[in-house]
Amino acid sequence: MPPIVKYITVNAPVPSLSDNLADIDRLKRALLTETAARPLSIPFAQVSNVAAAFRQAKFSGTAVINDLGERLELVDFVENPGPLAAMALDLGSTHLEASLLDLRSGDTLAHTHGENSQIAFGADILSRIHFAARPGGLVRLHEAVIGNINDLARQLARQAALPPENIRALAVSGNPTMTHLFLNLNPGHICREPYIPLINAPDICYGRELGLDIHPAAPVFIMPGVGSYFGGDLISGIMASGIDEQEHTSMLIDVGTNAEVVLGNRDWLMACAGAAGPALEGGVARMGMRAGAGAIEHINITPGSGVVKYETIDGSPARGICGSGIIDLVASLYLTGIIDLRGKFRPAGDQDGRLRKGAEGWSYMVVPGTETADGRAIELNQVDLDAMMRSKAAMYAILTTLVSQVGVSFAELDKIYVAGAFGRHISPRRAITLGMLPDLPLETYVPIGNSSLRGAEKALLSGRARVRCQEIRRNITYIELNVNQEFMLRFSGAKFIPHTDRSLFPSVP
Amino acid sequence: MPPIVKYITVNAPVPSLSDNLADIDRLKRALLTETAARPLSIPFAQVSNVAAAFRQAKFSGTAVINDLGERLELVDFVENPGPLAAMALDLGSTHLEASLLDLRSGDTLAHTHGENSQIAFGADILSRIHFAARPGGLVRLHEAVIGNINDLARQLARQAALPPENIRALAVSGNPTMTHLFLNLNPGHICREPYIPLINAPDICYGRELGLDIHPAAPVFIMPGVGSYFGGDLISGIMASGIDEQEHTSMLIDVGTNAEVVLGNRDWLMACAGAAGPALEGGVARMGMRAGAGAIEHINITPGSGVVKYETIDGSPARGICGSGIIDLVASLYLTGIIDLRGKFRPAGDQDGRLRKGAEGWSYMVVPGTETADGRAIELNQVDLDAMMRSKAAMYAILTTLVSQVGVSFAELDKIYVAGAFGRHISPRRAITLGMLPDLPLETYVPIGNSSLRGAEKALLSGRARVRCQEIRRNITYIELNVNQEFMLRFSGAKFIPHTDRSLFPSVP
Repeated sequence: MPPIVKYITVNAPVPSLSDNLADIDRLKRALLTETAARPLSIPFAQVSNVAAAFRQAKFSGTAVINDLGERLELVDFVENPGPLAAMALDLGSTHLEASLLDLRSGDTLAHTHGENSQIAFGADILSRIHFAARPGGLVRLHEAVIGNINDLARQLARQAALPPENIRALAVSGNPTMTHLFLNLNPGHICREPYIPLINAPDICYGRELGLDIHPAAPVFIMPGVGSYFGGDLISGIMASGIDEQEHTSMLIDVGTNAEVVLGNRDWLMACAGAAGPALEGGVARMGMRAGAGAIEHINITPGSGVVKYETIDGSPARGICGSGIIDLVASLYLTGIIDLRGKFRPAGDQDGRLRKGAEGWSYMVVPGTETADGRAIELNQVDLDAMMRSKAAMYAILTTLVSQVGVSFAELDKIYVAGAFGRHISPRRAITLGMLPDLPLETYVPIGNSSLRGAEKALLSGRARVRCQEIRRNITYIELNVNQEFMLRFSGAKFIPHTDRSLFPSVP
Repeated sequence: MPPIVKYITVNAPVPSLSDNLADIDRLKRALLTETAARPLSIPFAQVSNVAAAFRQAKFSGTAVINDLGERLELVDFVENPGPLAAMALDLGSTHLEASLLDLRSGDTLAHTHGENSQIAFGADILSRIHFAARPGGLVRLHEAVIGNINDLARQLARQAALPPENIRALAVSGNPTMTHLFLNLNPGHICREPYIPLINAPDICYGRELGLDIHPAAPVFIMPGVGSYFGGDLISGIMASGIDEQEHTSMLIDVGTNAEVVLGNRDWLMACAGAAGPALEGGVARMGMRAGAGAIEHINITPGSGVVKYETIDGSPARGICGSGIIDLVASLYLTGIIDLRGKFRPAGDQDGRLRKGAEGWSYMVVPGTETADGRAIELNQVDLDAMMRSKAAMYAILTTLVSQVGVSFAELDKIYVAGAFGRHISPRRAITLGMLPDLPLETYVPIGNSSLRGAEKALLSGRARVRCQEIRRNITYIELNVNQEFMLRFSGAKFIPHTDRSLFPSVP
């Protein structure tokens, strides 16, 4: 399971009249026992430096070798190698998260994150695709994200006390549009029927080709995607969860801009995606926010009194509610009778005087302005509630459509892996109460954190993982929900709390 | 025997909802039957252009594929391909010669030549190595020759009515120093014991990496060398002569700055080189010149009268004497008794009053100033004669040392291939008279023209030839003459005309 870059110790004999092989031939000869199985070449831009360093080091030191699968590349020679640092990147449309690994030990040397400054050119994927179509737009988006990545690389390098050019590889997981913008490739056809990316599985490119401030010959491995709605980030999720290697059937749920769901085992994989995300990721109109400082992640309304108790992620004054908080809130509103099974406010159920009627209809005060960070009350109105009901219905419809396509039941699932901030903060119990997730034993649900980042890390560490990416990509079956009649029927049935068919949710009161 | 670049016709289906593969995946799929045996990748710098051209051409057209041996590269897509043009280059230290081939037919589309403007920085290899060691020196030498090559590329393209960027590959044969300077690599250790090139067998690099005005993704194939005194130009010579593929043993003689000689057959190859060149290549002090306009290539002195008859290469007034002319001249001087068997002037033999005694000793007037291009007489003095005698002795000593090392006799040789301008213009009869070449039937000697250029052409046209280069490089045994006692003895014995052992030259009167 070789990492994408490796060190090989070299002790070559010093040249003499009876052994006057050329410097580079001498170095290749010294590497022969370790590299003979695959062709070894030296990129032209590296030859001069490698030869000079090899001579400077008196023909003994450490060769730095890129492992490109069917072939190897000799890219550097160092006398005293430090950690074999490589960067993994979750390239999100709003948020970037990165780690620095030592590829020899697998240890994490550093970790950081930041915003995607492409937001200035368009808040969502679609607006960025449109911006990219304007003259000079693509380059501006590309340069913005390269700038962000360089910032992260410098932060990682500083934390690990290394120069950034000692970062010797990069693996990137992102959705198809983010991957295109990262590579300065036109994403224009992703959002137009028949929804065609320019590329799904880019070949290895190099730090220098992308203007990255890492080693110029650092291989850049891009997690491959399957199509316009199924990107490298989800392949990473599959790799991180390991469902493609397990005997029993499991499921992976990744809620981002879309809800992306994969079902399968080591023999087969099926996937689909649908627009269930915005409300669940904190996209609810006024008071939604991403999981972060000041985000309410847990809420409980005390039955009887209607008193609201909440926790923010870091204990600081509340700024808004993230996805898991909204699920908690809506489940509590239902359990205390403040909303009905259609998700509509019931003034009769309000025992703490929190419902008010304004120009836009009923609104529920979650946190008064006296307790919030900015002095403005955090409220949930009927519009927000309706969006949340559509999202939860879509999520359940996606899950049921997918299992029914394959003919398995939820009860047969070994695990349901839940990725991302959503998976980390969500209470499966509350999501079941809403009828968003199937009514299964709570231990079925396994949060797996930032699986997009984890998948990229695996690709850096293991040649087997890099091959698996391509196997997954080739083997997965993608179900298009936009044209799926069954999905539409199931969506309608899931618009009640927990569901029109209550027998599906025996544990919900 | 695939050429280094090939065209593959593509007719891919237009994308639809039921076939929404990414553009690049679609193109790779369409190429699969032709490329499945080897990995196919697209260099990052080409992806965007290839995808745009594929879409623009409505998914049908011609893919341009680099054949890199163990793998393939897709580098362009064109709707209406013209000739598949590739450039072969003989990269000499004074002279460059280039041809443009159509790799589909093997036809020569254009041919040109020019001077190496590095001469301004140093007339010979050694002075250029020294110049390269000065600050900024290497880059100036590199840029000078890249400028020359770009000039030739533009001339070839103009002749073939193509834009230069349609030149889709380049193969280069040069000696080790020229190859280093071409690649902007430090040749400094080539001339210092233990005589180590930086590299003998560079991996493929690309037009864009060298600043060449050909297609940016054009592969640049560099004929590999064996060591500091055995370059890619001689590997080209072996390939052009074909001695490495023949059952019978043959010899190749290439006279340039050094005399380089190869002996062998399909089972083994031996080579050596020695400083026999300058006098033979036209390096004789005052009146020597390269084979070119105004160069005297044939001379005869009429026995009895001492009248001199000569021919210049193009019939224009004489400017100097090239290597073949000097051999003719010295052989005639010997046959008419104007020089003795030690190569010293015999005033008694001068029947046409051409010998004069000046401050520097005797001098023989070959052409009076009234007949020359510049009005100055062309003369041969004793210093020139001595240099010529050393060269001819060195040449014969090299040849005899080489055959004796292997234990074959000259009579066993099937052919003796004589490369370059030297081979084209030389009279083997006269060279035998001097005792420079062995006394064999004249049909043994086969001129093969610019074998350095021919070898590069073969490398462009045939994958088998590109593999052969490496096989030859690995299999050849190089004999170092500088430390060879036998060579020194043989050199002394060859300092007479034709030889101290006259029985070796029964045909010489």
